Amino acid sequence: MSLTIISSVKAHGGEQRVYSHPSSATRSEMVFSAFIPDHEPGLKLPVVWYLSGLTCTHANVTEKGEYRAACAELGLIFIAPDTSPRGEGVPDDPEGAYDFGLGAGFYVDATQKPFAKHYQMRSYLEAELPELIAEHLPVDLDRQAIMGHSMGGHGALTIALRNRGRFRSVSAFAPIVAPMACPWGQKALTGYLGESQGAWLAYDACELIEEGARLPDLLVDQGTADPFLETQLKTHLLVHACKAANQRATIRMQEGYDHSYYFISTFMDEHLRWHHERLVGAS
Amino acid sequence: MSLTIISSVKAHGGEQRVYSHPSSATRSEMVFSAFIPDHEPGLKLPVVWYLSGLTCTHANVTEKGEYRAACAELGLIFIAPDTSPRGEGVPDDPEGAYDFGLGAGFYVDATQKPFAKHYQMRSYLEAELPELIAEHLPVDLDRQAIMGHSMGGHGALTIALRNRGRFRSVSAFAPIVAPMACPWGQKALTGYLGESQGAWLAYDACELIEEGARLPDLLVDQGTADPFLETQLKTHLLVHACKAANQRATIRMQEGYDHSYYFISTFMDEHLRWHHERLVGAS
Repeated sequence: MSLTIISSVKAHGGEQRVYSHPSSATRSEMVFSAFIPDHEPGLKLPVVWYLSGLTCTHANVTEKGEYRAACAELGLIFIAPDTSPRGEGVPDDPEGAYDFGLGAGFYVDATQKPFAKHYQMRSYLEAELPELIAEHLPVDLDRQAIMGHSMGGHGALTIALRNRGRFRSVSAFAPIVAPMACPWGQKALTGYLGESQGAWLAYDACELIEEGARLPDLLVDQGTADPFLETQLKTHLLVHACKAANQRATIRMQEGYDHSYYFISTFMDEHLRWHHERLVGAS
Repeated sequence: MSLTIISSVKAHGGEQRVYSHPSSATRSEMVFSAFIPDHEPGLKLPVVWYLSGLTCTHANVTEKGEYRAACAELGLIFIAPDTSPRGEGVPDDPEGAYDFGLGAGFYVDATQKPFAKHYQMRSYLEAELPELIAEHLPVDLDRQAIMGHSMGGHGALTIALRNRGRFRSVSAFAPIVAPMACPWGQKALTGYLGESQGAWLAYDACELIEEGARLPDLLVDQGTADPFLETQLKTHLLVHACKAANQRATIRMQEGYDHSYYFISTFMDEHLRWHHERLVGAS
């Protein structure tokens, strides 16, 4: 599979790159960013996946995430994919809303017309993109961690829950923890998967935990001043699900923080160090 | 003088704010950002001024500068002003070029029509804004540092050179060091100050050093892959001027770095620690 370098800039001693490639999963050109720390030639490095939230592309965290200093110090490759397919022929929300369609792929494999043709973000992230980066970048796929923000927190949780053993650690900033129980999730799951809720269960972290899926160690930070906390994010549902299932988890309410990259960048360094401890230990 | 809070967001334990206020110097509404670390009530904190480059507003460094972690740890207030007056009636470059007019005030007091009415960025930064922040924010104006990028590096150097004793330390990322000797500077100084080069001398760091002005300790980082290095920035002229004048300075060429915020954010933490050492020592 081919990979095109759109840009490569030196930062914190490493290279901050943006790549594009044709995706067979999404039948579109996809863009992602990768920070590759300075490292010994031939060495393969642990990789941290970062899935972004509604309206974002790879660029938001790449510009505002403040992850490069820690990744350079700890020797972590940081991969930031896009949040949906894009380009000619990729359908958007019929009314152009921010919470469905472009920038809002919800990390599902859509089954409904007209979205099914391109909106295959689950397959893209679970199969195609890992294979592609393993081919082209110095990543060690035996040492993977995954994290995400908001809709991307939902993505990180559900991908890790469905792929037990793949990730050494999972973390999230202000994740959507129960899409079946919030308006953003209900709209997206209906639009991409149809009305039948049976098909939704594979995309709801709380449901997956209740059904017996398990995560490696989990770290979540959630701001108390986040305007989406009560209506969309509902962190308490994850707290209950983890407690009921005896799922190991550290879920922290952070006083006064909102939903923005000012919140994310505050805790990014700590999340990366937490992942690193788990990535460098025995598997 | 009045100050309006446009936004205030919690970050790294402190508050990242954006303010606006009517300016008597520029006869326009001005916007700036201020990061205020968590601190004991009543305490006044050292302040670091950051002047931005061409095309920027306060927002670029606020989003991409990666300064908050260090400022929070070290107890530094970080002020990022805009790069020009803006708004109704403020004239721009006649052809809308990026290197003159809006976003390109060059930190001068313009004397030429139609720019003189609003383009008074020197007076704004040397007199009005310090007074304003002293009135409204917990800053200790006896402990000030100044830094800047590109055109803002020029601003930081020349403001410090003209105001001896005001700043404990000065640093710059990829500064324009000799505007009289480069196309960006020649265009701006002609447009704002007229053809007579006598009026330009107060705005050229190398000329000011040659004439006897002095800086406190100086730190400069310049990327070797910066596309503007040879034509506009001409770092070697500052090296020569400092050497000839016995001006204390650390001017570092950074291999492979460009002119972007990926470069700036790489060295921001180090610059802030360098300033902090000088801000907390005896005056």
